[in-house]
Amino acid sequence: MVSLKLSSFTHLFSSPSTTAISYRSPVILRRHHPFAARFSAKITPAETKDRVDNSKNRVPDRVITPRSQDFNAWYLDIIANAELADYGPVRGTMVIRPYGYAIWESIQDYLNVKFKETGHSNMYFPQFIPYSFIEKEASHVEGFSPELALVTIGGGKELEEKLVVRPTSETIVNHMFTQWIHSYRDLPLLINQWANVTRWEMRTKPFVRTLEFLWQEGHTAHATPEEAENEAKQMIDIYTRFAYEQAAIPVITGRKSKVETFAGACKTYTIEAMMGDKKALQAGTSHNLGQNFSRAFETQFTDENGQREYIWQTSWAVSTRFVGGIIMTHGDDAGLTLPPKIAPIQVVIVPIWKKDDEKMAVLNAAVSVKETLQSSGVKVKLDDSDQRTPGWKFNFWEMKGVPLRIEIGPRDVSSGSVVISRRDIPGKQGKVFGVSMEPSILEAYVKDKLDEIQSSLLERAIAFRDSNIVDVNTYDDLKAAISQGKWARGPWSASDADELKVKEETGATIRCFPFEQPQGSKRCLMTGDAAEEVAIFAKSY
Amino acid sequence: MVSLKLSSFTHLFSSPSTTAISYRSPVILRRHHPFAARFSAKITPAETKDRVDNSKNRVPDRVITPRSQDFNAWYLDIIANAELADYGPVRGTMVIRPYGYAIWESIQDYLNVKFKETGHSNMYFPQFIPYSFIEKEASHVEGFSPELALVTIGGGKELEEKLVVRPTSETIVNHMFTQWIHSYRDLPLLINQWANVTRWEMRTKPFVRTLEFLWQEGHTAHATPEEAENEAKQMIDIYTRFAYEQAAIPVITGRKSKVETFAGACKTYTIEAMMGDKKALQAGTSHNLGQNFSRAFETQFTDENGQREYIWQTSWAVSTRFVGGIIMTHGDDAGLTLPPKIAPIQVVIVPIWKKDDEKMAVLNAAVSVKETLQSSGVKVKLDDSDQRTPGWKFNFWEMKGVPLRIEIGPRDVSSGSVVISRRDIPGKQGKVFGVSMEPSILEAYVKDKLDEIQSSLLERAIAFRDSNIVDVNTYDDLKAAISQGKWARGPWSASDADELKVKEETGATIRCFPFEQPQGSKRCLMTGDAAEEVAIFAKSY
Repeated sequence: MVSLKLSSFTHLFSSPSTTAISYRSPVILRRHHPFAARFSAKITPAETKDRVDNSKNRVPDRVITPRSQDFNAWYLDIIANAELADYGPVRGTMVIRPYGYAIWESIQDYLNVKFKETGHSNMYFPQFIPYSFIEKEASHVEGFSPELALVTIGGGKELEEKLVVRPTSETIVNHMFTQWIHSYRDLPLLINQWANVTRWEMRTKPFVRTLEFLWQEGHTAHATPEEAENEAKQMIDIYTRFAYEQAAIPVITGRKSKVETFAGACKTYTIEAMMGDKKALQAGTSHNLGQNFSRAFETQFTDENGQREYIWQTSWAVSTRFVGGIIMTHGDDAGLTLPPKIAPIQVVIVPIWKKDDEKMAVLNAAVSVKETLQSSGVKVKLDDSDQRTPGWKFNFWEMKGVPLRIEIGPRDVSSGSVVISRRDIPGKQGKVFGVSMEPSILEAYVKDKLDEIQSSLLERAIAFRDSNIVDVNTYDDLKAAISQGKWARGPWSASDADELKVKEETGATIRCFPFEQPQGSKRCLMTGDAAEEVAIFAKSY
Repeated sequence: MVSLKLSSFTHLFSSPSTTAISYRSPVILRRHHPFAARFSAKITPAETKDRVDNSKNRVPDRVITPRSQDFNAWYLDIIANAELADYGPVRGTMVIRPYGYAIWESIQDYLNVKFKETGHSNMYFPQFIPYSFIEKEASHVEGFSPELALVTIGGGKELEEKLVVRPTSETIVNHMFTQWIHSYRDLPLLINQWANVTRWEMRTKPFVRTLEFLWQEGHTAHATPEEAENEAKQMIDIYTRFAYEQAAIPVITGRKSKVETFAGACKTYTIEAMMGDKKALQAGTSHNLGQNFSRAFETQFTDENGQREYIWQTSWAVSTRFVGGIIMTHGDDAGLTLPPKIAPIQVVIVPIWKKDDEKMAVLNAAVSVKETLQSSGVKVKLDDSDQRTPGWKFNFWEMKGVPLRIEIGPRDVSSGSVVISRRDIPGKQGKVFGVSMEPSILEAYVKDKLDEIQSSLLERAIAFRDSNIVDVNTYDDLKAAISQGKWARGPWSASDADELKVKEETGATIRCFPFEQPQGSKRCLMTGDAAEEVAIFAKSY
């Protein structure tokens, strides 16, 4: 095991030792014990501590730390309980479990179509990059060299040149572009890859920042700077739409400050999401790379006039971090809440019976409801296991964030109707009795409800976001807003040094200069000079 | 660059140096030169040599070495010309280009559905594995340790324990299974991941054997040996169906000999495909791992009687190697030939006009034909570029292996019909004139032809395979068959030592004991002893 200094987050995410084969996650162990049937989301702080320290001797209920009490513990509890991910044996690595991976697949399915619709082709670049490539672009090497994993031995022999395990692929992409691009007729070249990348991070947290993660990285080459700029904006627009329309995350889209721009880019566009603890999560970025890499790699083309020119480039990425963003935007004390459009299971059916003679009729009705919904394209699961009570199942699937639950008992069978409960509205308020089992009615009702939940989650997140952004006009206002844990939005035209001072004194950084800007003349909150734009400041992940 | 001894294959696949940024593939360079319009598949051996040696000074036509002349050169020419893959900067690595990647996506789309239908969930394991894990299973470490890439530096520091870049994931999977599996209720556990893997191979060849490749690896855990055996067989059956029904490759499915069994498995099932040069390609494997890994990793469960037992496991994989198998099964001197079910483009439309006043009518008809086919689910491309002649386009799309070509000229527009050519039947024989443009007729005709091509490619491959397998009853017969480049099938019950002797003396190995066995009593071709099965011997990739 590597012996690096671990931050305060890391102890929660690191397994004790790579060789500790017998190490088991206490939370996961518990699922298999009968007491787990008494699953409850309500626990005391003392119990939370128990859970961590004492799991091998006692078998407490499965618990989720209340979100308001300890946001980080709540987040990790959800990841463990909903079986989204687990610790890998190497510090900072993560195993993405089927339920978490299915959320990533939803993200992939949507984006992959959008990338192809906008003319991009998928391909695959090798992950091993000669070390010398990384050194070619000055700010790139400065940004990435502290985070590199290096292969130095291959096939039993010391390598002459160390190989970098890709932290991102701009360098190897440019190496190949140089071979493929010759004239303006080869442009634009629009490609994307779905891949794993490695960054040797010190502070890790499942999904949000891991030593290895999955992402897509788009890379494009253009004949003019205008085309590259349009491409970079088109892709951040696709990310923005994905965030709003699929993930129900009302990101704020804008441009990064120079200080926060990607290592090697001219401009970085970003989508910034407000998490449940009001910290910002950078959830996707799109870079206008200008000619920085093409000059470093001599990636040239012959233009229509026969002149040799450097190409103009972009790159853009969304990663498994987005899954963390979904958890931290919509989850609550009962667990995960998933927007219907990205939920691996949109509807769970829980059959309820007491006597054996009721069982057959209830199960038949449940199967028929399942088939109705499945054939109309709804992602539905029938939980017909004998080993758990209906109450346990209600809690379990709520914790897993399934948007709708359909309950079917003997009386429902008699009346030809079902009971439907919404995940996003707890208790009786979210429960509707007597919805007809008649296929066309039920199907329309369920689809309508799923749409309603999708919109409602977005509206709730917008309201939360807007109530936690404070407009500020002075540095004192900014400090006050940040110290309340909020985002501050104010006019900014000060120096990089001033920006770094804000970071040092408040912990907040400029998340972006939003595309949506207030009208009217503005004065920089720091210097009082004229300012053209407002910036958003926040603490971030 | 690593300084390892390179085999005869390797010089064709290795770029001259990792730092040779200016290196360009001569074949690819040529595409951008006007002379490429004279593209022809017919060349002399002297021209082939020219192409390689002299490309920067002269610009010959784009050429493909005839298959009969030099199968390996033909293969590499197709990969370059059809833009399937390119050399990565590190020896033995490969960049999978969009057209090659699209074939891989066809493979993924089919298998992914089949895996899910049979109850498997996708997930993701980290690629960095502590070195100590690899050492736990004795035959596994023996098989893989010569091929490992090791990360020794992370975040600028020497690591205390070297990390293996996964060559396969059985070890880390078992480490995690030990945490997730507790009782029989947790079984079976059925998972799969799509991932990259790294094996430091000495002899590399694009798609067939590369230092890094893409694959899926399934891993399952069961409560009984029977279940594990059924699973291993179910998965090799899915691979077999995929090969026959999608890739039109008539693989022979069977069991590996003990000598050829996967490092760590009890039994390996395999699909073996005969390439155009009659060499065998192992195109997919499914392993019954028994309890080998569970004993090494202490992966136990409590059975229904409360007893602790080791789990029974399988693993199974298909990789980007399969793309190489498709090329080498169906391709010919004109280039690639793709079975319709895995072709990224199933139909290409080439509009033909001479005068400007014809252009509009022809293009309108072409667009309408394209929309008709697209809306009925056919993957269609309209090549309406002005820069190439129709003749050039015919050759180009033939070389890319597109199953059907639709030609539309002014006279076709007048008569409301099109000309349709099959890729698999060259010249006039494969060409049909006067197919109606009427949507329902055209759609039915095209779908019918695509089905016919799919069947016809499979039949052709079966005929080729069967005419090149020789039944043998003596070692002399076997040697004769192998020396003719054929496969030998004969009864075998001899020792491992005898098997290794065959390999040493003939270059052939036991590819498998086929599931389909001839009836009647048999005598081992080597020893004359009673034999229960025939084995297939062949030289292989």
